[in-house]
Amino acid sequence: MKLLPKSYYFDGIRSGNRAALARAITLVESTRPEHQTLAQALLEDLLPFTGQAHRIGISGVPGVGKSTFIERFGKMLTGLGHKVAVLAVDPSSALTGGSILGDKTRMTELATDPEAFIRPSPSSGTLGGVARRTRETLLLCEAAGFDVVLVETVGVGQSETVTAALVDVFMVLLLPGGGDELQGIKRGILEVADILVVNKADGEQNRAALLAKAEFTAALRILRGGQTIPVLTASALYNLGLSEIWEALQSYRGDAIKSGELNQKRRQQQIRWMWTEIEGRLEQKFRHHPQVKALLPALERQVAEGFMPPTLAAEKALSIFLGE
Amino acid sequence: MKLLPKSYYFDGIRSGNRAALARAITLVESTRPEHQTLAQALLEDLLPFTGQAHRIGISGVPGVGKSTFIERFGKMLTGLGHKVAVLAVDPSSALTGGSILGDKTRMTELATDPEAFIRPSPSSGTLGGVARRTRETLLLCEAAGFDVVLVETVGVGQSETVTAALVDVFMVLLLPGGGDELQGIKRGILEVADILVVNKADGEQNRAALLAKAEFTAALRILRGGQTIPVLTASALYNLGLSEIWEALQSYRGDAIKSGELNQKRRQQQIRWMWTEIEGRLEQKFRHHPQVKALLPALERQVAEGFMPPTLAAEKALSIFLGE
Repeated sequence: MKLLPKSYYFDGIRSGNRAALARAITLVESTRPEHQTLAQALLEDLLPFTGQAHRIGISGVPGVGKSTFIERFGKMLTGLGHKVAVLAVDPSSALTGGSILGDKTRMTELATDPEAFIRPSPSSGTLGGVARRTRETLLLCEAAGFDVVLVETVGVGQSETVTAALVDVFMVLLLPGGGDELQGIKRGILEVADILVVNKADGEQNRAALLAKAEFTAALRILRGGQTIPVLTASALYNLGLSEIWEALQSYRGDAIKSGELNQKRRQQQIRWMWTEIEGRLEQKFRHHPQVKALLPALERQVAEGFMPPTLAAEKALSIFLGE
Repeated sequence: MKLLPKSYYFDGIRSGNRAALARAITLVESTRPEHQTLAQALLEDLLPFTGQAHRIGISGVPGVGKSTFIERFGKMLTGLGHKVAVLAVDPSSALTGGSILGDKTRMTELATDPEAFIRPSPSSGTLGGVARRTRETLLLCEAAGFDVVLVETVGVGQSETVTAALVDVFMVLLLPGGGDELQGIKRGILEVADILVVNKADGEQNRAALLAKAEFTAALRILRGGQTIPVLTASALYNLGLSEIWEALQSYRGDAIKSGELNQKRRQQQIRWMWTEIEGRLEQKFRHHPQVKALLPALERQVAEGFMPPTLAAEKALSIFLGE
């Protein structure tokens, strides 16, 4: 990739040039030091033009119809005059080389919509790395004038938690059904959700969707003691319930702005991100320190076998790292 | 505190001298560098004599009767010929100066039992610090011949998760009742539990206890998809159900030993502890670095206000720390 002057990216993004936006995202995703230096300088310049978007996380079990939902929901939003960016946090793409959004043919209508921008998850890196690049891509999209950003995530490992820390509101799509069907829900997902949507509520599945709605409402009462969150039904395929979801999201946002919670949440997210970066980089520097690297396997073995207390092992490795 | 030769602690602990054990624990809890050096050397020597105990975590909402439960359960175990140590992970004691186990008058019978040893949570330090010292105290107790270690924890912050990482099995005590009563349960607690006990199942509360048992069984089915864990009822006050709990714990342990899961869990716990120590110490070194310390407040402010990207702030602070 050829490096262009910073002003190319800056001016291009601010004037809504999609090629410039795409190139800036590639810069953000690059691991080469000179690319990173430019990316960080660009982000710093663009920061004053970020923060205005409605940042919405969307998760759901496989088969729930996330692609169709995002396509139809996104089309409804562009129809209402919004500019919609769709990003993804998908650490599995690093393993499989694929990506949940890699194939834009999944969302053909939205992909060709001039008011929408779809960017697949970076296809390599750790979850932390994927999350950082998605967060920075989100800022670039905001600076380019997108006022709704949908961040899709798969239910793999910690990806929901990481995504929830990126967005203003976290929406979980669910399948119709009850009882045994509820078992597919990943632990913890009901705890980070701000709004639940039972999708595929159409035709014969309408009854099952209402049942699921009732059961999730009951489960939430147990899990979230007191706090209530909206549980809605929808059928993205038949464009049912989408405007009600948008209303619920806007109402959630309105309350969060009025109470100051949104501002507070974003401030905390930013500081948390700084510390996540610091911790990640410190650990990386530590793990890649030549002498530490040579010692670690033996230390881990001795600790696992119970020959050395973990505290002592940590102390030994650290004094080498810090040259004490 | 006067430092005694390492052999005093070692020989004392190995011969079951309680004063030597108590002094060694004080050493482990001390933050003075010369105490820590001796403590770590002692732990290393004692490691071959550790690991044989049944390590049991016990948690529960306030009012569930943890003290009475531990007293009666502990007495039953010493009656069966076991040597029982009771420890605690209570980060709140660092804030309030008090401790859930500070007042041994809560467990007068067990406190005076020659086959039992009760040690309050260290009364200062972060949760990580408290957990480390409890873990090392647990090893000292094992080396002193205790074959059952009960680790009590309060439902504050991450204390359950930290405690679950210390023990072989995690037991949660619950109150009788259903519906609204379930709401007091902290998020996540049902996810780390290996066995649930509805306490106070006596007299008029018997029905409510059975109701709670049914509701928790249903909630677990939703939360833990497929995996089943024992849900028992008991009344510690009337010594009801305690031997059934002990049977369930022994059966859990037997299965875990047979399948190799216990060995695997402990190895992973040890390695995880080493990394927790490394991460904690690295961050501490980082935060206390004079130039970093001077810069951090301004960096956090700029990041929170959105004037500086978190990645750039992290980079700035790290290059100062590493002298690059």
